[in-house]
Amino acid sequence: MGLVTLTLGTTPMATEPFAPESVADHGHLPRIRLAVSRPMPLDCGVMLSDFPVAYQTYGTLNADRSNAILLCHALTGDQYVIGGNPVTGKPGWWEIMVGPGRPIDTDRFFVICSNVLGGCMGTVGPMDPDPATGRPYGINFPVITIGDMVRAQKLLVESLGIEQLFCVIGGSMGGMQVLQWASSYPEAVFAAVPIATAPRHSAQNIAFGEVGRQAIMADPEWCGGAYLLSGRRPEAGLAVARMAAHITYLSETALHRKFGRNLQDRPAFTYGFDADFQVESYLRYQGSAFVDRFDANSYLYITRAMDYFDLAAEHGGVLPRAFLHDGRATPVRFCVISFSSDWLFPTTVSREIVHGLNAVAANVSFVEVTTDKGHDAFLLDEPELHQVMHGFLDGCAAHRGLPRRRWAPR
Amino acid sequence: MGLVTLTLGTTPMATEPFAPESVADHGHLPRIRLAVSRPMPLDCGVMLSDFPVAYQTYGTLNADRSNAILLCHALTGDQYVIGGNPVTGKPGWWEIMVGPGRPIDTDRFFVICSNVLGGCMGTVGPMDPDPATGRPYGINFPVITIGDMVRAQKLLVESLGIEQLFCVIGGSMGGMQVLQWASSYPEAVFAAVPIATAPRHSAQNIAFGEVGRQAIMADPEWCGGAYLLSGRRPEAGLAVARMAAHITYLSETALHRKFGRNLQDRPAFTYGFDADFQVESYLRYQGSAFVDRFDANSYLYITRAMDYFDLAAEHGGVLPRAFLHDGRATPVRFCVISFSSDWLFPTTVSREIVHGLNAVAANVSFVEVTTDKGHDAFLLDEPELHQVMHGFLDGCAAHRGLPRRRWAPR
Repeated sequence: MGLVTLTLGTTPMATEPFAPESVADHGHLPRIRLAVSRPMPLDCGVMLSDFPVAYQTYGTLNADRSNAILLCHALTGDQYVIGGNPVTGKPGWWEIMVGPGRPIDTDRFFVICSNVLGGCMGTVGPMDPDPATGRPYGINFPVITIGDMVRAQKLLVESLGIEQLFCVIGGSMGGMQVLQWASSYPEAVFAAVPIATAPRHSAQNIAFGEVGRQAIMADPEWCGGAYLLSGRRPEAGLAVARMAAHITYLSETALHRKFGRNLQDRPAFTYGFDADFQVESYLRYQGSAFVDRFDANSYLYITRAMDYFDLAAEHGGVLPRAFLHDGRATPVRFCVISFSSDWLFPTTVSREIVHGLNAVAANVSFVEVTTDKGHDAFLLDEPELHQVMHGFLDGCAAHRGLPRRRWAPR
Repeated sequence: MGLVTLTLGTTPMATEPFAPESVADHGHLPRIRLAVSRPMPLDCGVMLSDFPVAYQTYGTLNADRSNAILLCHALTGDQYVIGGNPVTGKPGWWEIMVGPGRPIDTDRFFVICSNVLGGCMGTVGPMDPDPATGRPYGINFPVITIGDMVRAQKLLVESLGIEQLFCVIGGSMGGMQVLQWASSYPEAVFAAVPIATAPRHSAQNIAFGEVGRQAIMADPEWCGGAYLLSGRRPEAGLAVARMAAHITYLSETALHRKFGRNLQDRPAFTYGFDADFQVESYLRYQGSAFVDRFDANSYLYITRAMDYFDLAAEHGGVLPRAFLHDGRATPVRFCVISFSSDWLFPTTVSREIVHGLNAVAANVSFVEVTTDKGHDAFLLDEPELHQVMHGFLDGCAAHRGLPRRRWAPR
């Protein structure tokens, strides 16, 4: 695509952010071009070459490049983990977990997070120009999978000169990527923390995904996916999709505690279709805020990638085989975490991951955090989660020969 | 409105269906005009007069008019309980429960079911002409409540010459009406069976309702509610609303058992946005079938009525007071039924109803039916539900001096 790029296999000093000389960077820097000299195969059969991936790094890579942690973001997350998000003007999505002195301590670890393939924050996705036409891909962008996302991340990590990640961590869809990393590249991952996730998307998960997609595609502004060509945006449909999904991120208890049946700035029912209830007003806000920062087609692609995820399917439907490496138990150390009130990715499916790992005698610990905050708990101030994260990382650091450090919750 | 009508207070022989000479009956007969001589107050403050209610009856009213059972339908139900539905061409919604020799035995009982206020099957609702303009009400129809629905049903029952119903039975929103009946008219109800319901809509319930409404109102074909004027229909939005709601009617287990991750008539992923999965195809079908038989504005009104429902609110927030009658326990005999896998109206909220009844020492039995079919179990072949229903009705029949009859599941 004619740009001066960092290519697969370069191993620059990774202590500074990279700033490839790209004019098509969407303002998301650093941004790297991958698969320039050799195309990357996608699961759908398409070969993707010379594509951009936007990412952020935090902290300093140590001399032997053994302290790198890859964070995998969830469906609507992005690479802006801490230090604020330039698109929303709000804090990063994991300020509470990552940073100097935090459980994922940027004084100790070199933290990497990249926008997923198919995303809309600088990594190649349906908003980008199709090299064949020069116009935005729209739904001509190839359908990508969790495996494809991880394949691109692997190229990024290699390009940063890192042979083995100290840890891969992520919640929800990020957790799917963690599982895929550990399964596909067991020698490139020392430890793995899949949080509030599943080895496959369930029928109910797929059903909610489909509702969101149908809401978007039902919006006439979607224009068969080609809305960017006419400067339109299916905002109403995307907002409905977000609203439906958002309900699934919270527990019934959390909704009750936060909102109950409280009315929104009014003493009584209006007997109309305004947002009488606080929970309605909150959902409408979630919907409208989301469309300002997210691309509708990206939403289609990324939810589809989640639907397609089924780690066992690659291994004849037998999950434990996903955790075999040369016929033996994966060398990766796992810490599987679930939340007691998460009904989207309930503890039962985290247990399936654990049972799969146990079946090959892999190294795994499992924690169900007791909380009423639902699926979103992984993003929230959940002290037990933070203690577990620190404890696991510190224990793994000792095994990996990294300096240990005591940590106290702030 | 110039029609010859049956009015409030007439007590015709109720063994034959009524056929008021109406030209605006939508084909839904029998249909009665209520509140002709005296307007009916709605909770929103509007007075509604001379409005049609469409209903069906099954079986024969006995000589002392003591064997009438009112069935209250759920959100998307209607008056066609058994014997087929003329709109859909499909069976009635409770063929399995109601009929000769069924638990609600039409050889013993006179069964009444009316389309709810705000509905679209012949009872007055937003499709009907606004007398002030002659054009369809649209969203100028007054916002109605569960209390209003029950008030209209009370007029209907009176017009049928019935002073006391032997039983009021309903599931989901129908169960809300049952609770409202027992609370508002304790002397007009001998027994009550609220199934899979709640004394109030929860924050999560309201949230799902709001997603459905937003999906409808986001559809440009909704035209601010005035779509009938231009011959348009917000089908896409209504289908999305139905799809989102439908997920909540099924348990995760039921979805897994019925569909799992099975593909729809294809050997492998298509890597596209077609309905690859059976569960997607099923949901799309549910959405598209629904728009053929339901009015989008009715959907707005009826979901709103559910959101507004809070039985305790009428009684200072103290639920037991809803079950006091002249300072003493309600005389109504209750059988409260929940389903173990219902996450929309879980057993915990049925227990709240029971605790409220216990607090006034009312006559109540409570059954949690163990099933993995979710909220929709009340409509399905659930033998324990059917046994409980027969047993409770037969016991109440003895107390009421009606002949008893042995029943065996078919």
